[in-house]
Amino acid sequence: MAQQIFQNYPPPLSEQQQVYLSTYVKNWTIQHGLTVRPSAAQVSEEVNPNAVLATNAPVSLFPSPFPRKLFKQAQSLQTVYNELYAAIASNETFLESVMKELIDVDDFLSNLWKIHLDVKAEGYTHEHALGLFRSDFMLDAATDTVKQVEFNTISSSFGGLSSLVTQLHTELASFPAPATSLAYPPHPLFKTSGRPNHPPPNEAVPTLARGLASAHKAYGPAKSSPALPLCVLFLVQPSERNIFDQLALSSRMHTSHNVATFRLPTTSVLEQTTIGTSSPSRPLIYHPPSAPGTAYEVTTVYFRALYAPSEYTSPTFWQARHHLERSAAIKCPSILLHLSGSKKIQQVLTSTEPDHLGSFLPNASAATLDSLRSTFAPQYALDSEGLALATNPDTAAHHVLKPQREGGGNNIYRDNIPPFLASMPEKDYKQYILMELIHPPASAHNTVLRSDGEVVSGDVISELGTFGTCLWKTPRPHDADAPKQGEAPSTPEILHNEEGGYLLRTKASGSDEGGVATGFSSLDSVLLYDDEHLH
Amino acid sequence: MAQQIFQNYPPPLSEQQQVYLSTYVKNWTIQHGLTVRPSAAQVSEEVNPNAVLATNAPVSLFPSPFPRKLFKQAQSLQTVYNELYAAIASNETFLESVMKELIDVDDFLSNLWKIHLDVKAEGYTHEHALGLFRSDFMLDAATDTVKQVEFNTISSSFGGLSSLVTQLHTELASFPAPATSLAYPPHPLFKTSGRPNHPPPNEAVPTLARGLASAHKAYGPAKSSPALPLCVLFLVQPSERNIFDQLALSSRMHTSHNVATFRLPTTSVLEQTTIGTSSPSRPLIYHPPSAPGTAYEVTTVYFRALYAPSEYTSPTFWQARHHLERSAAIKCPSILLHLSGSKKIQQVLTSTEPDHLGSFLPNASAATLDSLRSTFAPQYALDSEGLALATNPDTAAHHVLKPQREGGGNNIYRDNIPPFLASMPEKDYKQYILMELIHPPASAHNTVLRSDGEVVSGDVISELGTFGTCLWKTPRPHDADAPKQGEAPSTPEILHNEEGGYLLRTKASGSDEGGVATGFSSLDSVLLYDDEHLH
Repeated sequence: MAQQIFQNYPPPLSEQQQVYLSTYVKNWTIQHGLTVRPSAAQVSEEVNPNAVLATNAPVSLFPSPFPRKLFKQAQSLQTVYNELYAAIASNETFLESVMKELIDVDDFLSNLWKIHLDVKAEGYTHEHALGLFRSDFMLDAATDTVKQVEFNTISSSFGGLSSLVTQLHTELASFPAPATSLAYPPHPLFKTSGRPNHPPPNEAVPTLARGLASAHKAYGPAKSSPALPLCVLFLVQPSERNIFDQLALSSRMHTSHNVATFRLPTTSVLEQTTIGTSSPSRPLIYHPPSAPGTAYEVTTVYFRALYAPSEYTSPTFWQARHHLERSAAIKCPSILLHLSGSKKIQQVLTSTEPDHLGSFLPNASAATLDSLRSTFAPQYALDSEGLALATNPDTAAHHVLKPQREGGGNNIYRDNIPPFLASMPEKDYKQYILMELIHPPASAHNTVLRSDGEVVSGDVISELGTFGTCLWKTPRPHDADAPKQGEAPSTPEILHNEEGGYLLRTKASGSDEGGVATGFSSLDSVLLYDDEHLH
Repeated sequence: MAQQIFQNYPPPLSEQQQVYLSTYVKNWTIQHGLTVRPSAAQVSEEVNPNAVLATNAPVSLFPSPFPRKLFKQAQSLQTVYNELYAAIASNETFLESVMKELIDVDDFLSNLWKIHLDVKAEGYTHEHALGLFRSDFMLDAATDTVKQVEFNTISSSFGGLSSLVTQLHTELASFPAPATSLAYPPHPLFKTSGRPNHPPPNEAVPTLARGLASAHKAYGPAKSSPALPLCVLFLVQPSERNIFDQLALSSRMHTSHNVATFRLPTTSVLEQTTIGTSSPSRPLIYHPPSAPGTAYEVTTVYFRALYAPSEYTSPTFWQARHHLERSAAIKCPSILLHLSGSKKIQQVLTSTEPDHLGSFLPNASAATLDSLRSTFAPQYALDSEGLALATNPDTAAHHVLKPQREGGGNNIYRDNIPPFLASMPEKDYKQYILMELIHPPASAHNTVLRSDGEVVSGDVISELGTFGTCLWKTPRPHDADAPKQGEAPSTPEILHNEEGGYLLRTKASGSDEGGVATGFSSLDSVLLYDDEHLH
């Protein structure tokens, strides 16, 4: 039934309507900071030597339909997912047992794990951990369910810009007051129960900022003596095109929480921060290069960088990661939380024997656990059952093979799976998980304004991300009361757990990998539909 | 004494401080829409075929000092100036008597006047007029007074962007909370009476929007039958780089006043608007090209274009101006109000015999009139007294010769005046007025981020603009009760009269003409100083 919705949407535009709409969006994005720095391919350094130019973030001209009940379900599960990953990150024993084999063969994971062990040996000096999460789902049209694609535990991006996309689409759907929209032609989806149907409010910015502020507050007074002023650091890539997404959060920290934030490029961690020696708790001290002689104590390090192997281009970056991990600052995320976001963990959670979900969420109702489980796509390790599915061309046709390695572009699809596996030694199988393919609505369309100003239309696939934040006290690995090997893990003490805001990313379909050989990938918002729209 | 203030300001920056500050500003401007479209010189059409790129508006890195008492004086005079120009624009007899000679020799003025006469002959169908004004002043350091440079009655720009500059400078002066500013080094001007001294709030956007909304409301119900929905038109140049300044106002109209606005390029006036035939009052009907079949009745036309002769590149533009003038829409400005902003009017107002000020402002106190008069720089027509001053090299050295013609770059300064006059026939003298030069503080400095990203420092001159809006009922020229030739003019009935917001424009000095052969011209805000700062 949902196919109908997607087939007849969005309403067609005349050429003049499309020019009007795309011109409106082109101007609106710049006016409101829904922007990115242009790529070097779009604007060369020669033309833009001072890096002043900006362009619109790629945005869809229309919000994309999404079933209201599944959107609500995804939102309602966010705090449960938050708690689940807090519990996983607090359980070193579980993490080690699941990741062990991968750690043996994957340099990146191995280096992260080594830092954790080093700091553990020295003694963690803090007990708080913060997660700013984004749980990514796809609508499975075959089963009318949402299925989780991945759960991001580090550098969950686009909260800042996606809030603006919601605002843009809402304005377009209601402009100009007081008449009905001129920007969008009339369409049944723009009404629900006789009233205007607009994208639901997007609380990503206040939610994510509240998460950071909760950690900042939980850190307590300065540990250094004499006490320094406190701040939050945004750890960022040196040449970040998506900077305005991040600035939306830092601005909110200033205006709504009166918290100082600074941007720290990964290349400057070891120059601009030190571990204070005035306290055994290893406070992280930030020395702003713009104001020599001043110093701040860092309550929280928010990672918008150092999530991917490609960023660690020299040992310096590993030293920087170690330096931050051993400091007293609350990390968003800690290394254990970063590792908790591995695809392997996601796969292991789907197993019911043992029932990991039940043990990590001892207080969750059976209905909640069922709802959570309904969002799991079937996933397998490449052992007996998974290997059989992957090597049989008939069953492989319904699956995707995902390497543990971070970064897109490495997935193997369908028919390509059996020969791919045949070409590699069996010992490497453990680096992969097999996931049943999700079937998004086949006939979804949208039109996108790309960052180069081209307006392109086509078949699309959308991915819904729901944002949430969680702050907890984690049992210290060196604590006397931390669980011993084999004991039941202690549950983290949750101090702040919140859901809020969403991202819809809409890509041209026709290629299995987003971004690769596709026409566009855009920021989008949702237009919720109900049963009434299906008739 | 003021020289001290300017000599020691702004605080010097180390290279690292300047990099930090300019990078902060570069990002802030894009995040907040303090932007312009880049010039073709900065980015060629080949690089930017879809006109998507944007860059920062040129901004000063520091607010510029301005004496608090003179800033307050300028603000307090705004509603008086508003009323004065409402009275002038309502007095056709006065306007004609002053402009007559110029109308005879200046095609532009002559064409405008002809349109007025045509519409008068046909009969004006409306009685409201709206002004969105900006009164521009310079600080005269020699006399410690502000002197008016000009009073803008059409297309008073930069209210939208200058509000953002105030916000930027305020944030820089107070960032990061809760410590003192890291962006600006400490300086005595950043404190007043022991408290932080920030630029005063800038209410330009809400003020200008309220002005437009007051006209929209005063227009009343639709005149067409059946009644159409109502809207405000922003009349704009087809390729407007300063579009984001205008969008700040149209956004405010939507969000705070629930009024639909549309952008109408001057090239499309005759295609996209018609005069409705369903009513003798000549309602202006707008046909949005994006939504064929829909139509709006225009309550108010806000001119952000058609103010300069250079825009009337074909008879079509004159037809468009005539078409708008004869319609029932409230014009901001009407042709009479446009003409009231002439330099010649400004010069005539300075004369005390006859006492024009007193007759235009019969209800103003002597103190108010004195305060108003104190902002007049001495100005002369090139008759007996003025001609003597202009042709004597000793006195010419203190003057500037300004042609009536609009657009900068045509002023003649100091020693150049006598030979310039000698080279032209005496009959052309009437196109010029002579103004005593204003002496801005000689040692003012600032640093500016240009739109191409270059950061340049140097000696500067600043011009303060104060914004105000005024809506009035003007006696119709064809009304039976309109004053006859020689009678005392009736005063306009003022319906809305407000002051709010300001612009500081700061330019490199070292050249008499802004923009010509100078290094920069930037948007700025004011840092007010008091007597306490002078000791």
